[in-house]
Amino acid sequence: MDALMHYRAMIELRIQQWVEGLPASSLYAPMAYMIRLPAKRIRPAATLMACEMFGGTTDKALDPAIAIELFHNFTLMHDDIMDQAPLRRGHSTVHTKWNINTAILSGDAMLVQAYRSLGTNERVLGIFNEHALAVCEGQQSDMEFEERSDVPLAEYLGMIRKKTALLLACALRVGAVIGGADASNELTLGEFGEHLGLAFQLRDDLLDAFGDPIRTGKQPGGDLKAGKKTWILIKALELERSAGERTLQDQLERRPGERDVPLMLSTLERMHVQDAAEHVIEQHEALAFAALHSIDVPEKRKEPLLQLASSLSGRAY
Amino acid sequence: MDALMHYRAMIELRIQQWVEGLPASSLYAPMAYMIRLPAKRIRPAATLMACEMFGGTTDKALDPAIAIELFHNFTLMHDDIMDQAPLRRGHSTVHTKWNINTAILSGDAMLVQAYRSLGTNERVLGIFNEHALAVCEGQQSDMEFEERSDVPLAEYLGMIRKKTALLLACALRVGAVIGGADASNELTLGEFGEHLGLAFQLRDDLLDAFGDPIRTGKQPGGDLKAGKKTWILIKALELERSAGERTLQDQLERRPGERDVPLMLSTLERMHVQDAAEHVIEQHEALAFAALHSIDVPEKRKEPLLQLASSLSGRAY
Repeated sequence: MDALMHYRAMIELRIQQWVEGLPASSLYAPMAYMIRLPAKRIRPAATLMACEMFGGTTDKALDPAIAIELFHNFTLMHDDIMDQAPLRRGHSTVHTKWNINTAILSGDAMLVQAYRSLGTNERVLGIFNEHALAVCEGQQSDMEFEERSDVPLAEYLGMIRKKTALLLACALRVGAVIGGADASNELTLGEFGEHLGLAFQLRDDLLDAFGDPIRTGKQPGGDLKAGKKTWILIKALELERSAGERTLQDQLERRPGERDVPLMLSTLERMHVQDAAEHVIEQHEALAFAALHSIDVPEKRKEPLLQLASSLSGRAY
Repeated sequence: MDALMHYRAMIELRIQQWVEGLPASSLYAPMAYMIRLPAKRIRPAATLMACEMFGGTTDKALDPAIAIELFHNFTLMHDDIMDQAPLRRGHSTVHTKWNINTAILSGDAMLVQAYRSLGTNERVLGIFNEHALAVCEGQQSDMEFEERSDVPLAEYLGMIRKKTALLLACALRVGAVIGGADASNELTLGEFGEHLGLAFQLRDDLLDAFGDPIRTGKQPGGDLKAGKKTWILIKALELERSAGERTLQDQLERRPGERDVPLMLSTLERMHVQDAAEHVIEQHEALAFAALHSIDVPEKRKEPLLQLASSLSGRAY
């Protein structure tokens, strides 16, 4: 069994126990439903790996790891309401299966449950609180960007940093603290997580446009069709504007159903936006590995986190 | 200045500082708006009073007291969405002034902010987590009761205990712990808060039907008109059913605009429901005072909490 599977198995077992301990009520049923949807458990696995990397044992990190996963699922439950999303991981979202009020309230209680699992370590609580606020700030920016046509790349990166990347950093820093890391190593491992998380989100944006439909399971260009401001679209709009062209701008001014997605994709290709994105992803991965490399623990202890990085990037390291 | 005003002034000052420390963004503006609506600050005042009662100083209890008030306002922000309420304390609700998504997200971040202000005391966190879940359970029951015609009195009391009374108990227990109370005194003070909170909510139900419109500022019978299941309505329906009558039942089967509120009020009067409610309120107040009385600290130190009780009940103790 590879390292990631080993940690995932521990997490799934603890989640199962957690679900079995829930009171039988319509407040808790949506939490159980949400947390049992198939998921990769990247963040709680990262917590356990970080703890062991610094010589801690997983028994002390397991509940805080579950807290990170509960928090993540709470954000998904509420984000799905805000995005009016009918499906999550191929299953009905909570507000579709139950109703909006239940999804609001059950999500609230799930956030409280996350704090319950987190424990009372002062450093851990401090890290968690700061990052939880950052995730809310990221979601707020994401919603505001939908109303704006002029989001610069730097602001987009700031948004995905808060909304996505920082929770991986949080998961790692919590594990590091519990494992006995000093403040410097904790922060450095956080940088590893932040850059890895950014690279992951940018790759996800890229796969939507240029991924193999057989592997991604969806038609290429869904984000383009929806006019969603991702890194590649913002980059392409910047390039187009400085070249005095407006193919993409024209398409975006149409209604979603009237956009010529193949034309948009070929425009992106002509401008080599994919290469530019790959370059930025590689930069963040390089920064992630440099951070991990600089931490002074035996290299062997870093192997699980390298496996996690491989799993996120789809490459071997 | 009486004791309650003294504590309220401290709380308002700290809330003002808290608001001034918020980042300027649309995530935080609704929190600032909500927490600055005129309010009695009963719960945070209770935290400070409980702390001093056991010999603690208010400086250590002030931020946890703010945490309780932030939590309370977070629940109001989300409850107002669920209840589709346009007004709160005479002002626009957050989802009306901004929008539903902002009210969801800003509420979430306000709950995180509550934890930030709460601190890292293990006992305090334990009390807060348990009571926060109970409040969610109470709100869930309240929503479910709207769909049911057969809510027994005991279930109704269980609901308002969780939704309203326990947060006052929580505020007092948190203050007691910070003030240095042992576990036994902490629990006893919690009982005081629970019974006081129940009496307050029942009195509120009663005032809606039988209060002086000049003092309450609203037309009598608003809850009856809406068909809201309050203690007095449930009690009256039970009495009516056992007497083989169905005046109220008939009214409830009509649409809200077609209900004869004066007839409903006179039916309640004929069955002496007001007396029955007064009796139950007095029982809870007696239990509250018995709990407070049994705590072994100098009587002088209990005076602020007795003032708080007077303020809640509208009577002098």
